[in-house]
Amino acid sequence: MFKQNYPSLLLQNAVDELASLPGVGRKSALRFALHLLKQPKENVERFGQSIIKMRGEIMYCNNCNMISDTPVCKVCSDLKRECSLVCVVESVRDVLSIENTLQYNGLYHVLGGIISPMDGVGPSDLSINQLIKRVEEGSVTEVFLALSTTMEGETTAFYLYKMLNKFPVKISTIARGVGFGDELEFTDEVTLGRSIQNRQPFVPLNQ
Amino acid sequence: MFKQNYPSLLLQNAVDELASLPGVGRKSALRFALHLLKQPKENVERFGQSIIKMRGEIMYCNNCNMISDTPVCKVCSDLKRECSLVCVVESVRDVLSIENTLQYNGLYHVLGGIISPMDGVGPSDLSINQLIKRVEEGSVTEVFLALSTTMEGETTAFYLYKMLNKFPVKISTIARGVGFGDELEFTDEVTLGRSIQNRQPFVPLNQ
Repeated sequence: MFKQNYPSLLLQNAVDELASLPGVGRKSALRFALHLLKQPKENVERFGQSIIKMRGEIMYCNNCNMISDTPVCKVCSDLKRECSLVCVVESVRDVLSIENTLQYNGLYHVLGGIISPMDGVGPSDLSINQLIKRVEEGSVTEVFLALSTTMEGETTAFYLYKMLNKFPVKISTIARGVGFGDELEFTDEVTLGRSIQNRQPFVPLNQ
Repeated sequence: MFKQNYPSLLLQNAVDELASLPGVGRKSALRFALHLLKQPKENVERFGQSIIKMRGEIMYCNNCNMISDTPVCKVCSDLKRECSLVCVVESVRDVLSIENTLQYNGLYHVLGGIISPMDGVGPSDLSINQLIKRVEEGSVTEVFLALSTTMEGETTAFYLYKMLNKFPVKISTIARGVGFGDELEFTDEVTLGRSIQNRQPFVPLNQ
């Protein structure tokens, strides 16, 4: 009776599109569509247009590749930031996570992915040449690799290390160890072993 | 530094809109927005337009209130359907659920909600007068109330019963009982008690 169980082609198209969002199945997509149908027309217009406008008009910072409303992003154009320190991350989301800690005051470099031969992503698919150019220019003194502790993250970090090693820059990485709130009992052996080898001077919290 | 932690106002607007979807928080909304940013421009255009078009152009069936691409929906205009049987449901989604069972061949009437004094929804907010008009016209012989077994559902069913009782129509409701796959041990006492009172002739499954 219904074409693919939907009473309307317009509804079906909207559900098809909404179901393309990550982690959204057809049931949730239908729920979203029926919710949108109940909203005032102008709200739904604004909903759709905000997404189209974002995709059409957003820019990527010429310097660090971060999303931005301007050709150079707010971080890169902020004079209070330490411009000799560059934190290399996989994605825009990592920048947001690091900004939320309020512990970092340098610049960023968004790779736009991670080296992953399994997914067909090689060094040339990432903004690595742009990073090397930034280092070559000479104002960068430390490159801080904040990549995931996965196989792909480690591979990418090693590749970047090989490429940047010839320049007079310090190359650092995020500290590995047992997370705050984690129990030793449930920490894997590699992490625990490394965090014994790399034990640090004791600093009480809140200091 | 970032206005509300977002590096771009365009991104922030899109996240605000996506977070208005039911069950979607700001983290999921950001995930959706970053996913959409990675898609080709024309796909995102299609995404936004499909939603705007759905909201702008969808119709509600003049007869049963179901969403439709035409003034009279596919079910109401299907000559193979039993037009003397009308199933009363709360929402569009209930119609989809009942259609999916393939067990129903009558027409529908979508109330557009349920009587709920707590939420300020009274009988006049629902399409009850439209239902009474359908019954008055005389071709309906049975009104089948398929409402939730909640307080609001029972209240609505009772109200409809009082309104329709004066017409020469049979008023039925969905069978209450222990669900297939449920264990007696975990069935609540009211349901179990009623399903003992209303015990039915045994019919083997697959017949």
